[in-house]
Amino acid sequence: KRGRVDLTHGSGGRAMAQLIDELFLAAFDNDWLRQLNDQACFSVPAGRLVMATDSHVVSPLFFPGGDIGCLAVHGTVNDVAMAGAKPLYLSAGFILEEGFPLSDLKRIVESMAAAARQAGVPIVTGDTKVVEQGKGDGVFITTTGIGVVPADVRVSGDRARPGDKILLSGTLGDHGVAIMSLRENLSFGTSIASDTAALHELVAAMLAAVPDIHCLRDPTRGGLGATLNELARQSGVGMHIDEAALPIRTEVAAACEFLGLDPLYVANEGKLVAICAPEDADRLLAAMRAHPLGREAAVIGEVRADPHHFVQMTTSFGGSRIVDWLSGEQLPRIC
Amino acid sequence: KRGRVDLTHGSGGRAMAQLIDELFLAAFDNDWLRQLNDQACFSVPAGRLVMATDSHVVSPLFFPGGDIGCLAVHGTVNDVAMAGAKPLYLSAGFILEEGFPLSDLKRIVESMAAAARQAGVPIVTGDTKVVEQGKGDGVFITTTGIGVVPADVRVSGDRARPGDKILLSGTLGDHGVAIMSLRENLSFGTSIASDTAALHELVAAMLAAVPDIHCLRDPTRGGLGATLNELARQSGVGMHIDEAALPIRTEVAAACEFLGLDPLYVANEGKLVAICAPEDADRLLAAMRAHPLGREAAVIGEVRADPHHFVQMTTSFGGSRIVDWLSGEQLPRIC
Ligand SMILES: Nc1ncnc2c1ncn2[C@@H]1O[C@H](COP(=O)(O)OP(=O)(O)OP(=O)(O)O)[C@@H](O)[C@H]1O
Ligand SMILES: Nc1ncnc2c1ncn2[C@@H]1O[C@H](COP(=O)(O)OP(=O)(O)OP(=O)(O)O)[C@@H](O)[C@H]1O
Ligand SMILES: [Mg+2]
Ligand SMILES: [Mg+2]
Ligand SMILES: [Mg+2]
Ligand SMILES: [Mg+2]
Ligand SMILES: [Mg+2]
Ligand SMILES: [Mg+2]
Repeated sequence: KRGRVDLTHGSGGRAMAQLIDELFLAAFDNDWLRQLNDQACFSVPAGRLVMATDSHVVSPLFFPGGDIGCLAVHGTVNDVAMAGAKPLYLSAGFILEEGFPLSDLKRIVESMAAAARQAGVPIVTGDTKVVEQGKGDGVFITTTGIGVVPADVRVSGDRARPGDKILLSGTLGDHGVAIMSLRENLSFGTSIASDTAALHELVAAMLAAVPDIHCLRDPTRGGLGATLNELARQSGVGMHIDEAALPIRTEVAAACEFLGLDPLYVANEGKLVAICAPEDADRLLAAMRAHPLGREAAVIGEVRADPHHFVQMTTSFGGSRIVDWLSGEQLPRIC
Repeated sequence: KRGRVDLTHGSGGRAMAQLIDELFLAAFDNDWLRQLNDQACFSVPAGRLVMATDSHVVSPLFFPGGDIGCLAVHGTVNDVAMAGAKPLYLSAGFILEEGFPLSDLKRIVESMAAAARQAGVPIVTGDTKVVEQGKGDGVFITTTGIGVVPADVRVSGDRARPGDKILLSGTLGDHGVAIMSLRENLSFGTSIASDTAALHELVAAMLAAVPDIHCLRDPTRGGLGATLNELARQSGVGMHIDEAALPIRTEVAAACEFLGLDPLYVANEGKLVAICAPEDADRLLAAMRAHPLGREAAVIGEVRADPHHFVQMTTSFGGSRIVDWLSGEQLPRIC
């Protein structure tokens, strides 16, 4: 029993206080959290704030390129950043399963702390619950982030206009394929790492070059296919992309073929889609390529008028297909 | 399979979009959420904000007096309010277990929506994940809230001073005993209802009467015992309470005796502890009693200088005991 999470760690008694002190506070270490009030308190300037939340349930918890801890920081930082906002603070709620090794929890929490530190976004408040063995899956982490939107920024999913250019910041499918290769025990999978990363600095560099970016979105669950369909629906437009322009690693393409997956629908955790006016596209692309997380950025298509809000793709063979919402068929769960 | 949560509801495809549209958006219904961006955006005035988060894992999901949905709203609204803040916005992350009945989910989401509406705090952004059967427990809900602190308010757990009075807003143990009676199938349990409630309006009324409240805290997990020990530790003081002054319902006392529980350590979900200067205590008590959620409020003790930061209690028999942190012994998990 020693060295594992047990129900007393969630009971509100001494064991919980000790876990919070010695593990969470020690790792996240900041003045807001150290107060140990029921909430964190901080000053903000007048203006527009954003709030985003994601529950993280990835399995396995550790994977090439990251783990659930850094993923939980990156995922929420990115949803905040997709408003063009500067992320300010994070909260973290942990649901631990009884019996989970404390050493694994420590690795996860330290990875989370490192990711938060690197992103410059402190974890200022949290919560710790413990559920009985068989009622959870090791650890679930829900992060919520708030951020501040610069006065001149108006990024929103409903601002895509016919003629706008669609840009992608890098290769497709790395995260999802890394997770699924690990699950399926594919040996070549070990060479594929998750792309998990915090994108807010890339976004800041993009906005410095093009303040009037129309839309930003990170193609996570459902992949590029879901993201483009969401944006098309929100903006009431169609989209047209070019398969030959999509950056995909050779190993990822091979793994997708082997696993029977379409990389268009595989999750990413460190990529973004940007939509801007055609006259801004070159400048935006240059700004993206100048940043380490956008080195393989590409213009992948354009927005068109379409009463059906279809996403269409010119295939590598010169044909055309509709990139529909993913429906029905069951993908292995990866997040 | 129809009528139940399945993995496609979390896959990022059409089934998820439909669940979000038809269930969550329909129930929570507000302009921020309806945007369906990766984050919610709103304007705030310059000043101090607070952020609080709680993951909710209560089992059973439905209980006399409430359910996990309204509890998830009340819990976070209360942690925001315990800074003396006015709660502004909530986020909600759902972790659903495959196979969970959609009808139960609908009940929970509607209860949550009603609680949010009643509290005047919209749920502006959310997330929905689905885990395989046996990896969750029906539904877990993590809520995060932000709120704004009035300029003249300085409530914090470290402000208790020797001589200060300790007030409690009402009866102890109702929530925990309601849950445990249900779990243990105690017939008399059905007459005991959870006290789950949003306390921010009570807090606003208290601050209107006494702007300089020193400390506020809701005695949830670990009960009054844990809360007083936390406050004593934070403020570096001792506390002294009077058992005879503690409001406890007869049925709750009886159930505690039957279940072998000490009401001092049983969770509450609609109560608060307040600490204020002795000269403010009468006014604060009157303001509490004038509010429907504070009708049974009482002064239960006072803060004392004590280098050991002990919480002591004069028992109903005139003896004295130390109210320590709950440690070791395993309570049934109730949240
Ligand atoms: N995993 C965690 N990481 C960082 N801080 C945490 C974590 N868990 C709890 N905390 C911090 O510890 C303190 C106590 O948290 P706790 O959850 O007991 O408070 P609460 O929400 O008021 O109680 P309850 O959860 O029973 O309603 C808070 O300051 C909280 O921010
Ligand atoms: N349970 C829910 N309640 C309310 N709104 C929700 C809920 N789940 C999702 N949403 C909303 O639906 C939209 C899409 O959410 P989704 O989680 O797909 O976005 P995301 O966080 O960017 O993607 P991912 O979770 O894959 O990282 C968002 O606007 C979100 O606020
Ligand atoms: Mg996300
Ligand atoms: Mg997103
Ligand atoms: Mg908590
Ligand atoms: Mg709480
Ligand atoms: Mg609290
Ligand atoms: Mg999400």
